[in-house]
Amino acid sequence: MKSYREELWFHTQTRREYVNITSQVQRVLEDSGIQEGLVLVNAMHITASVYINDDEAGLLRDYERFLERLAPHGDDYQHNRTGEDNGDAHIKRQIMGREVVVAITNGGLDFGPWEQIFYAEFDGGRRKRVLVKVIGE
Amino acid sequence: MKSYREELWFHTQTRREYVNITSQVQRVLEDSGIQEGLVLVNAMHITASVYINDDEAGLLRDYERFLERLAPHGDDYQHNRTGEDNGDAHIKRQIMGREVVVAITNGGLDFGPWEQIFYAEFDGGRRKRVLVKVIGE
Amino acid sequence: MKSYREELWFHTQTRREYVNITSQVQRVLEDSGIQEGLVLVNAMHITASVYINDDEAGLLRDYERFLERLAPHGDDYQHNRTGEDNGDAHIKRQIMGREVVVAITNGGLDFGPWEQIFYAEFDGGRRKRVLVKVIGE
Repeated sequence: MKSYREELWFHTQTRREYVNITSQVQRVLEDSGIQEGLVLVNAMHITASVYINDDEAGLLRDYERFLERLAPHGDDYQHNRTGEDNGDAHIKRQIMGREVVVAITNGGLDFGPWEQIFYAEFDGGRRKRVLVKVIGE
Repeated sequence: MKSYREELWFHTQTRREYVNITSQVQRVLEDSGIQEGLVLVNAMHITASVYINDDEAGLLRDYERFLERLAPHGDDYQHNRTGEDNGDAHIKRQIMGREVVVAITNGGLDFGPWEQIFYAEFDGGRRKRVLVKVIGE
Repeated sequence: MKSYREELWFHTQTRREYVNITSQVQRVLEDSGIQEGLVLVNAMHITASVYINDDEAGLLRDYERFLERLAPHGDDYQHNRTGEDNGDAHIKRQIMGREVVVAITNGGLDFGPWEQIFYAEFDGGRRKRVLVKVIGE
């Protein structure tokens, strides 16, 4: 069994942003040389998500509206009494998830027709990381 | 390390449906011959989920009501301005999740007493796929 | 490829509780002797979650309030017509997730600065289990 790891760094300009990272994950997979196995892609921070869905601008606005409705920024969160202002981001990240696990087949991401990997930032404006860990042969 | 892959196809009659696929995943696992490892089961489409919970008819109706309350079909989604009518399904799938990863021990799914794998369709009436990828030894 | 498995048991005193299990998972990882690979940590019951986020008391109260608002205990769930009273717990667990998959690098959990693994109990007061499955080399 081989394994390979790389970190992807992001620094979004706005508090919330949805970044398509599919090609970056594919590039890591190629660098790994692994042909069959699994790749784990996870946010290393707890106010961001990695998820898989469509890269369509209207949908990203729908997600934004949905998440902001469920856990509005600026609501009264007990977490914010620590001096933070990101209580909403910790909830948004739970809804969208921390990680995806993707099958590797014949050296590629084994995807359906519309699957794209996104990094979803809910508390941006600073440098944050995603881990890509590949295992297989 | 061995790996094995198979696609399961579904064509639900209704827009939304919850299908217990545990026995199909078990059959794939047996065909793989893998005794120890992990199995990834994921929707290959972005308006469907794979999740693990109880196979109880009332619970499935509770999920249906909960998801339809959070993201009603027919609401005004910006995604639907592309001509689609499935903006709600892209949100429902995020809540229920894309994938499950299950431990394989002694050639079987290493489950607690009530764990069952479900394919949840939120935009059905057409042929769609689930990927089962097994790795291990 | 090596594999290793262990069950962690919990018996919470209250119906809902959030338990930091990071050090227990680390101990299982050390016992496995695996240096590079993946570890799956999943609830074996369907009214509990395993998730990764911050260990901050205010945040845990925010999660509690958020989940109770989305799926209040004591609401009218069809699942409860079976004689159960935990319909809410089956929904809360879907929002927070069943499992996490964590990279293993140099024999440790490959974590960002604030990542902690939690067992979230939504129907406690009895003995329940978490599965830790390690694969790698």
